[in-house]
Amino acid sequence: MNRRCGKQTVALDTPVYVISYAAVAGVKEGEGPLRDSFDLIVKDDKMAERTWELAESAFVKKAVQLTLDKAGLKNTDIDYVLSGDLQNQCAAAHYGLRDTGIPFFGLYGACSTMTESISLGALLVASGFTKNTLCVTSSHFCSAEKQYRNPLEYGGQRTPTAQWTVTAAGGMILSSIGSGARITSITTGRIVDKGISDITNMGAAMAPAALDTITAHFKDTGRTPTDYDLILTGDLGVVGSDILCELAARDGFDITSKHDDCGRMIYDIENQDVHAGGSGCGCCASVLCSHIMNALEAGKYKRILVAATGALMNPVTVQQGETIPAIAHAIVIER
Amino acid sequence: MNRRCGKQTVALDTPVYVISYAAVAGVKEGEGPLRDSFDLIVKDDKMAERTWELAESAFVKKAVQLTLDKAGLKNTDIDYVLSGDLQNQCAAAHYGLRDTGIPFFGLYGACSTMTESISLGALLVASGFTKNTLCVTSSHFCSAEKQYRNPLEYGGQRTPTAQWTVTAAGGMILSSIGSGARITSITTGRIVDKGISDITNMGAAMAPAALDTITAHFKDTGRTPTDYDLILTGDLGVVGSDILCELAARDGFDITSKHDDCGRMIYDIENQDVHAGGSGCGCCASVLCSHIMNALEAGKYKRILVAATGALMNPVTVQQGETIPAIAHAIVIER
Repeated sequence: MNRRCGKQTVALDTPVYVISYAAVAGVKEGEGPLRDSFDLIVKDDKMAERTWELAESAFVKKAVQLTLDKAGLKNTDIDYVLSGDLQNQCAAAHYGLRDTGIPFFGLYGACSTMTESISLGALLVASGFTKNTLCVTSSHFCSAEKQYRNPLEYGGQRTPTAQWTVTAAGGMILSSIGSGARITSITTGRIVDKGISDITNMGAAMAPAALDTITAHFKDTGRTPTDYDLILTGDLGVVGSDILCELAARDGFDITSKHDDCGRMIYDIENQDVHAGGSGCGCCASVLCSHIMNALEAGKYKRILVAATGALMNPVTVQQGETIPAIAHAIVIER
Repeated sequence: MNRRCGKQTVALDTPVYVISYAAVAGVKEGEGPLRDSFDLIVKDDKMAERTWELAESAFVKKAVQLTLDKAGLKNTDIDYVLSGDLQNQCAAAHYGLRDTGIPFFGLYGACSTMTESISLGALLVASGFTKNTLCVTSSHFCSAEKQYRNPLEYGGQRTPTAQWTVTAAGGMILSSIGSGARITSITTGRIVDKGISDITNMGAAMAPAALDTITAHFKDTGRTPTDYDLILTGDLGVVGSDILCELAARDGFDITSKHDDCGRMIYDIENQDVHAGGSGCGCCASVLCSHIMNALEAGKYKRILVAATGALMNPVTVQQGETIPAIAHAIVIER
């Protein structure tokens, strides 16, 4: 029986299987430590498109195609696609999915979008409204940096806390019929704003949101960090991860030995000049839908908590003096 | 028993009641034909805020408060809030809902967001995952025009096909327990792009998407326009409404006598200098959550089909030469 636990969590006893997943990575990501895990590493981040925006859409298309292919499914086998990205108006999703003909729910959760889409997708599958639902998100360094921070040509100096927007896309198909890895609970985040206004320190803006959702998850379920083989955040990076672990310790629970972060895993932080690590919707999407799911399938993990984190940062309001709200959505995957 | 009908529709036999709704309208909207229907008409579109962006957030806050008050509920009685808006990164929703503490799913469906949120909200309520879910969307002429078209101070000449972004917000609470009006089915839209690239003709971009979803609804359910007392679109305006009716007639079904459009209803088109009518997420939200729901409650309508339409327009990609994808999400409300 599916049931709400506490205020933010739903436990899914109805099976929601991960029947397929795939990740497409950019050139720099393909040179990082996870290079052997991705389904495809592109040769050119521009994907033979005219613009960076369309290039990101091409990543979305590729991720969708690979995820379908690995499941042996066609577009017409998918009841819903849930997707969003960092481009204004989620343009990468819209242009990337324009020709699929799949009923579409557009989401915006900044870098939390992958677990937002899996959360809603899992609820829809568990409810019996759909057999197969596809979740896909993306980000692209070149479309994101020009929109959120500086024109690429400006060549601005990056601060030590800055993160590198990941060029990648990841897709996952959730199904009521299958075997293996399952989504077993979801904890939906609340908007948290602790007053950070530095657009080059997303980790600090997001860490309190990650803490809020992870804390809610433990409170709602009665579990502790020891119940998980891995507590994975989306893109806190080095700075945000340290803040999260410190805040958690202050609240009386130690997650240090269980925690890792996709933004820290996807690059060789010391040698790839990414400062505080990776970020973007495509960061959690591509790491989860490759390295992490592979490890689950291989039996390395039995139960993991994944909390993608989003800085809901709007450059206009931040320039106007506002602080940056953030959110984190958590899912549990078990095998 | 809830069931999928055809490819895009879910019929909800589990009751999903509309237990509350409220609309907050701007000054111009309060001077229009629906002035007696709104719960609140503000005296100042800037809502005593420093910026237009925060003013729109204030509309969201007000709509949430009124919707809760009318139901006699508090924030803590709401399991999920589903919201989005037209500002980049959905900033109006994030700043407007930042202090609520309600688990939040952020959506982006451009002007289709109100029925997208009601669609997902209804599925969540019908599945038993939530008792009360709040759906809220907004738009603001001043935050939208500067972002999508011209700086307000530019005073540009508006084309005859241009629509006027509605300054308003509307909220609705869906619940598993209640009486009266119910959401009885949802038809989820697909992305449709017929090659329109004129950012001052959103009606033409959206009409084919409205047709696609309405046609799917009739096909999936076996119903015809005669089964409805009203077929309401979100913000096609005068131009888009004419195109929709013409396209429908060409496809062999006549909706002219049943169709109306929130963008045509909210203003006195002849006398309020709005050219082709109203648009924006707040258009469908404020008209549906006032005039239309009042008419349902009063018994004027027994069954209506509401298809909010969204032009998924990204100014950057359009400037790069891309066309404008669109989508429409339909819901059926019965009393």
